[in-house]
Amino acid sequence: MLELWLVGIGTGNPNHLTLEGVEALRGAAMILIPRKGPGKEDLADLRHHILARVGSPAPVAEFDMPVRDESLPYRERVEYWHDQIARIWTQTIDRSRPSGPVAMLVWGDPGLYDSTIRIAQRLDPSPKLRVVPGITALQALTAAHAIPFNTVNGAVTVTTGRKLRDHGWPDGAETLVVMLDAECSFQRLDTEKLYIWWGGFLGMPDQVLIQGPLAEAGPQIVIARAEARRRHGWIMDTYMLRRTGT
Amino acid sequence: MLELWLVGIGTGNPNHLTLEGVEALRGAAMILIPRKGPGKEDLADLRHHILARVGSPAPVAEFDMPVRDESLPYRERVEYWHDQIARIWTQTIDRSRPSGPVAMLVWGDPGLYDSTIRIAQRLDPSPKLRVVPGITALQALTAAHAIPFNTVNGAVTVTTGRKLRDHGWPDGAETLVVMLDAECSFQRLDTEKLYIWWGGFLGMPDQVLIQGPLAEAGPQIVIARAEARRRHGWIMDTYMLRRTGT
Ligand SMILES: C[S@@+](CC[C@H](N)C(=O)[O-])C[C@H]1O[C@@H](n2cnc3c(N)ncnc32)[C@H](O)[C@@H]1O
Ligand SMILES: C[S@@+](CC[C@H](N)C(=O)[O-])C[C@H]1O[C@@H](n2cnc3c(N)ncnc32)[C@H](O)[C@@H]1O
Repeated sequence: MLELWLVGIGTGNPNHLTLEGVEALRGAAMILIPRKGPGKEDLADLRHHILARVGSPAPVAEFDMPVRDESLPYRERVEYWHDQIARIWTQTIDRSRPSGPVAMLVWGDPGLYDSTIRIAQRLDPSPKLRVVPGITALQALTAAHAIPFNTVNGAVTVTTGRKLRDHGWPDGAETLVVMLDAECSFQRLDTEKLYIWWGGFLGMPDQVLIQGPLAEAGPQIVIARAEARRRHGWIMDTYMLRRTGT
Repeated sequence: MLELWLVGIGTGNPNHLTLEGVEALRGAAMILIPRKGPGKEDLADLRHHILARVGSPAPVAEFDMPVRDESLPYRERVEYWHDQIARIWTQTIDRSRPSGPVAMLVWGDPGLYDSTIRIAQRLDPSPKLRVVPGITALQALTAAHAIPFNTVNGAVTVTTGRKLRDHGWPDGAETLVVMLDAECSFQRLDTEKLYIWWGGFLGMPDQVLIQGPLAEAGPQIVIARAEARRRHGWIMDTYMLRRTGT
C-alpha cells in the first residue's frame, strides 16, 4: 500500500516549515514535486530551496503538470484534470519504486483551498494518507499585521473572491478573510463601516501590507497590487475585512 | 522600546513549532512564560520541553497568572484581568532588564482565540510587536482527519461553542469549525444532513478522532469526550460540521 505524505510548507517563507515537516521530508523514501511551469519558477525554486536546506536524502522525482482542457465546462474540466494528475503521480511513483513513504510539498496547509488531498483520494488503489499541517495564508496575514484573527468570542468566515462577487457580504458575518481573489472583489462592497487588512506575498521578501478603512485603503490596494504584480510577474494576496464598531 | 515576540507553538505537538519559531526562541534575550497553575501542568511542561529542545540560551522568567475577579460582569472581568496581566508582564520584564527582544510561547497561533495580542496592546509604552505564526487547531483537526478544510470554492465559518449555542447554525453556512466548546453544543443542532469530524488532544499523544453523520457520531463524541476528560483531567477539542449533499 502506497504511503503518501502531504507536507504543508507554509506560504513562501522557508522558515514556515515545521519541525514535523522537516522530519517528514528527511524520512520519506521519495519526494514528488511538479516541474516548474511558465511563471512558476519562484514556487518551484522555493521547493528546491527547502529540500536543500532540510538536507533530505530522498531522491526527488519531478512530473509535468497536465494542461487543463479549456473546452470542458468548469466542473468537468477540474474533475478530468485531477484524474490526469492522479494518473501522472501513479506513473511517476511506479517508475521509481520507492521503498517507503512518498512525500509531496504543499503550499501553505494541504487542507486550505488546495486540491492535493482531493487528487490523492482519486488514486487507485487508495494510498495511506498522512497530512502534515502547515502555516496558512490566514495566519501569515494576521501575523504580518500583528492582529487577532477574531474579535472576542467572534466568528470569522473564510471565503473566496468568487464567492464574495457572487453572493456579496455573507448575512450576519462580522469578519471575512478572502483568498483566491484575482479581482480585488472588495470593490463591489459597500465600503461604509468596513476595515481592511491586506497582504501580498505574505512571509516573502516582497511582502506588501496595507490596512485602513476600506473607503481609503481599497483604492490604494488596487494600485499597489497591480504594481506588485507587474514587477513580480504574478501575485498572491489575501485580506481580512471587519465591520467596524463591532 | 520593548520588543515583544509572540511565538505560535502549535497545538500540543512540539514538532508543530516552525523553523521561524525555533530561530525566534533562540534569538530572544529573555523568555516570559506563565508559571503552571492547577490542571495546567502539561501545558507548562510542553513549554519547558520545547525550550529545552530548541536549546534557547535566553533566561526564562516565569510569572503567576492573576486570578479573575468573578464578582465583576463578564466584559469588565476580562478587561480588568487583561490589564492585570499586562502589568505583571511589565514588572517581570523590568526586573530582568533584558538587553533585547522578549519572547512568549503562545498555544497554536497567537491570532486565533487567544488574548495575548490584545494584552500586548495594553502595555504602556506600546511594545514593538512581532507575531510568529503557528499551527492552529483548525489545521491540526483537518490534518488529523486528512480532509480538506473547504469544499471546492466553498466558505468556512470558524466560530465558538458559545456562539453556536446563542445563535444556532449561521445563515447560509456550509462548513463550520467550532472551538472553545465545553458543552458539545452540536447537540442543540438539527442533526439531519450534518456530518461531523471531531478531534480531542489534536497532535498530542492522547489524540482521539471521531467522525460520522452527526446523528450517529454526536452521542459517541459526548461519551468519548467525557471519558477522555476524566482520564486526563482536562480536554481541548475542536470539530468541523458540514452540510451533507453539498
Ligand atoms: C490555492 S490557494 C492555497 C492556499 C494555501 N494552501 C494556504 O494554506 O494558504 C492560494 C491562495 O492563498 C493565498 N496565499 C497563499 N500564499 C500567500 C502569500 N504568501 N501571500 C498572500 N496570499 C497567499 C492567496 O489568497 C492565494 O490566492
Ligand atoms: C483559547 S483557544 C486557543 C486556540 C489556539 N490559539 C489555536 O491557534 O488553535 C483554545 C481552543 O482551541 C482548540 N484547541 C487548541 N488546541 C487543541 C488541541 N490540541 N486539540 C483540540 N482542540 C484544540 C480548542 O477548541 C480549545 O477550546
